[in-house]
Amino acid sequence: MTREQTLQTQPRFVTLEGGEGAGKSTVLAALREALQGAGADVVCTREPGGTPLAEQIRGLLLDTHHEAPSADTELLLMFAARAQHVRETIAPALERGAWVLSDRFTDASYAYQGAARGGDVAFIAELERRVVGIAPALTLLLDVPAAVGLQRARGRGAADRIESEQDEFFERVRGGYLARATAHAARFRVIDAAQPAHAVAAQAVAHLRAHMDALR
Amino acid sequence: MTREQTLQTQPRFVTLEGGEGAGKSTVLAALREALQGAGADVVCTREPGGTPLAEQIRGLLLDTHHEAPSADTELLLMFAARAQHVRETIAPALERGAWVLSDRFTDASYAYQGAARGGDVAFIAELERRVVGIAPALTLLLDVPAAVGLQRARGRGAADRIESEQDEFFERVRGGYLARATAHAARFRVIDAAQPAHAVAAQAVAHLRAHMDALR
Repeated sequence: MTREQTLQTQPRFVTLEGGEGAGKSTVLAALREALQGAGADVVCTREPGGTPLAEQIRGLLLDTHHEAPSADTELLLMFAARAQHVRETIAPALERGAWVLSDRFTDASYAYQGAARGGDVAFIAELERRVVGIAPALTLLLDVPAAVGLQRARGRGAADRIESEQDEFFERVRGGYLARATAHAARFRVIDAAQPAHAVAAQAVAHLRAHMDALR
Repeated sequence: MTREQTLQTQPRFVTLEGGEGAGKSTVLAALREALQGAGADVVCTREPGGTPLAEQIRGLLLDTHHEAPSADTELLLMFAARAQHVRETIAPALERGAWVLSDRFTDASYAYQGAARGGDVAFIAELERRVVGIAPALTLLLDVPAAVGLQRARGRGAADRIESEQDEFFERVRGGYLARATAHAARFRVIDAAQPAHAVAAQAVAHLRAHMDALR
């Protein structure tokens, strides 16, 4: 139920963040392989989404063919999906001792709904405390200039509703992510994602291994 | 955008509240007819819903065939739909001078997600201030013992997800509504909806006419 609380950092919860075209999918596959190679039980998931209901909410959020959500509606839909994702997928996996790798999590709301759309950060923080309650122990931020990422993303085919925003929007997303990395330096690792994909993946895996070693 | 503010009471905004089987549809039709008979422009709407996107969110909320939302997810989906409803349907109608009749509004979240599900009322109030911002000037509460309302509602065919709750749930909904009526006595009129439908409708119309007269 909704309740005031501090965030609980989860040692085996790792998130991957970054704007469009940062190369998250390649890195996620490399991280999963590294964990599985070490004999770990791994759950790979994504946001918005990660449960059947949350994936339906994702559909409402990214659809370009119907009525667009207002900024407030977008923010609440993101947290509605996230609350469900934590409760149904992430928390049960962590409780049984699995590692959870999530392609985006709450930091994305600070970057997209906060920095880029101008949403109230205090309200986002309250939603996080009340309905999310947990934070990753390691967040890998794939940082790339918006123009480079967009060129990659737009080569992939039809853009969804958020990918269709103007370039300045994605510069604000990038700035929002970098501000989060500075404010939460203990758990963030910023990787230059303008490098070739194999170099980005190798750095990500090195950060994950260092984190796994530190947990032993 | 999200912002702290006090609620603005809208003189031409009228809401109808009540549990399952209270007879809201019949009353809504009578209220609409009374306003139209007085030459008013009237928009009839409902919650959850009232815009194409909000109706899609309603589908996720009431569906019995898929994953059920957690209490937090249900609350945020309700307010996501409501934010969209206010912005796209209610506020534009009020701005052009129309009357708006809504089958349920924010009071329903206090009764269902608050009183019945045990949600934090302070959080509901904050969501109301931040993403709703407006309140009706007149709220007609159709009050009926839960057992009577459920008997009527269950005669109507397949129950949706919320209608499928246990009887005690609906007693808590009723108690939540009556507590709202006491706390906001200036705008609430409580009507005994165990009476025959025509008597309920006549009382509702009498309350509406008194409100219209008071606005002149």
